[in-house]
Amino acid sequence: MSIFEENKLQNTSVSELGEFGLIEHITKSFECKNKSSKKGVGDDAAVLEFSKEKYQLFSTDMLIEGVHFDLSYSPLKHLGYKAVAVNVSDICAMNGVATQITVSIAVSNRFPIEAIEELYAGIYAACEKYNVDLVGGDTTSSTSGLIISISVVGEVEKSKISYRSGAEVNDLVVCTGDLGAAYLGLQILTREKQIFLDNPTIQPDLQGNDYCLQRQLKVEARVKLIEVLSDLEIIPNSMIDISDGLTSEILHIAKQSDVGITIYEDKLPIDHTTMNLAKELNLNPIFCALNGGEDYELLFTISQDHYEKLKKDVDFTIIGYVTDKSVGNNFITNDNTSHPITAQGWDAMKNTD
Amino acid sequence: MSIFEENKLQNTSVSELGEFGLIEHITKSFECKNKSSKKGVGDDAAVLEFSKEKYQLFSTDMLIEGVHFDLSYSPLKHLGYKAVAVNVSDICAMNGVATQITVSIAVSNRFPIEAIEELYAGIYAACEKYNVDLVGGDTTSSTSGLIISISVVGEVEKSKISYRSGAEVNDLVVCTGDLGAAYLGLQILTREKQIFLDNPTIQPDLQGNDYCLQRQLKVEARVKLIEVLSDLEIIPNSMIDISDGLTSEILHIAKQSDVGITIYEDKLPIDHTTMNLAKELNLNPIFCALNGGEDYELLFTISQDHYEKLKKDVDFTIIGYVTDKSVGNNFITNDNTSHPITAQGWDAMKNTD
Repeated sequence: MSIFEENKLQNTSVSELGEFGLIEHITKSFECKNKSSKKGVGDDAAVLEFSKEKYQLFSTDMLIEGVHFDLSYSPLKHLGYKAVAVNVSDICAMNGVATQITVSIAVSNRFPIEAIEELYAGIYAACEKYNVDLVGGDTTSSTSGLIISISVVGEVEKSKISYRSGAEVNDLVVCTGDLGAAYLGLQILTREKQIFLDNPTIQPDLQGNDYCLQRQLKVEARVKLIEVLSDLEIIPNSMIDISDGLTSEILHIAKQSDVGITIYEDKLPIDHTTMNLAKELNLNPIFCALNGGEDYELLFTISQDHYEKLKKDVDFTIIGYVTDKSVGNNFITNDNTSHPITAQGWDAMKNTD
Repeated sequence: MSIFEENKLQNTSVSELGEFGLIEHITKSFECKNKSSKKGVGDDAAVLEFSKEKYQLFSTDMLIEGVHFDLSYSPLKHLGYKAVAVNVSDICAMNGVATQITVSIAVSNRFPIEAIEELYAGIYAACEKYNVDLVGGDTTSSTSGLIISISVVGEVEKSKISYRSGAEVNDLVVCTGDLGAAYLGLQILTREKQIFLDNPTIQPDLQGNDYCLQRQLKVEARVKLIEVLSDLEIIPNSMIDISDGLTSEILHIAKQSDVGITIYEDKLPIDHTTMNLAKELNLNPIFCALNGGEDYELLFTISQDHYEKLKKDVDFTIIGYVTDKSVGNNFITNDNTSHPITAQGWDAMKNTD
């Protein structure tokens, strides 16, 4: 057998494990050894300790053409903006402030300079918006599509950090903004793309769906709401950003905090345009809110003591509460029936061939 | 015109700019705003200031199948090891110590678990060797080949940092280890691959080329030599790692330090196996040492005061000296002729279609 034959890949697929299963499988036996590694794999960002007053945060995200975005309807500028925003969102989820990013891109040699400039115009716009510095990166050839890999560094005062693992029994479960819109925006875009591919003379019908389209294409990190929480002197006991879908994130917090979480159908924050569009597309808006990803809202739990401070702020919705682990994770529908929560969030390992 | 048509790419290629040109073109107008951003784009790593005594270092590298590696002859374990080593090397080049990495990989759904485990076995071996913690990452689908994006964080005492821009006139130019072997290792591997493709019954002939093959496949970062420099109380005035080729790195230091650099043919450190293999392959060993990339040795400049400390150490070779900028960058051949140095190093933007 030659060295070339030896390296032929076996035929066992990883798709069954999915992204989270794969990460867990790979990283379960690894232990951090450096004193400055406060928390490794398993949260929205790693937690590093290089200074006395603050922790440094470190996270990364990779976006791949054909898996995470479709250049036929994602404007490059919005895509660049989004690639930064999703990284900043990971730092927000630790209750921190992003400060620096590196950006690596791989593009075909035939990719025009103008297109790369558009992509970077979006990256720079996001850096400006989030007060983040682009401090490095890598630019290389791709043999196929566009690949964007961004890493982010940030900071948080040690006393203010929020982990996924800090939820306590009786905590209130809070969600920012509203849910499901980004998922519906994606449905509109894929529908109109299909219509266009079937008959290029038909103009895409995007009228009236501005909100959902914007939620899909122009992603924002919730940095302002982190400031609001700070102003209100609220430190979430646990926090995560909603990138893969509410149920998926609920399960992350519950598992890592060793608690149960109960949420209510009638509390889910759903914008009326999301509601209407879901009906128009014959989709269940509750399903979209529970399982649609990419809203990049924040999900967190707080002590009930903070209830009065948050209850009037329309940016925050209390959607449930934390229970003992034995109660499990439950979704209470409007008919007062309890349904166990299972992960149906978007999984990058299961979405393509 | 529909939104789908609007986003069709223009037909102007970026390949003429090359990797460095493209990075410069994109980043030239960006200015860092955060107080903690000490140095952004333009060195082996960004320099961040989160603590009083030390700077934090932050860098990233992306490796793409078909561009940076060929799975038909790169064992996955070695590839994982190399992906970490090249990032650690960037931290070495700042005279620092790497502490944490994140690893993002994109693989086809059909990529077997066993293959991913092999890749991570190499990543973990490198983490162990370099005392670096794997603290995060991202695992996702790829529509084509394997993509590995690693980011690294490290530290360096503020008084010890070495930038590319610090070379001073009359400095000695020093190179670690030896050059050209990794490039020749690659030539052997591509030659044997072609023979195998033409006739799969012929066994690859790798005998006697262990050293060059190992230099290509099992890349090491020069962390030990950074420790040696520290023990000798030598802080390089400028430093860079030799990833793209000696001439390319010479030009980086000269440009950023605003100086000229003269190096000598008879000083170039070339292993005798490299010399012999080059002759066997009808290649000029000097050309390989000057322009072959991926040796990951360190190139640095030091004050002449340190000459006595280094002259006996076989790991370090003085290959030239720093001059006034007006002298230019020159390569003095054995016949005492001066040749201007031009970049011929490996460029990831120019190497593929």
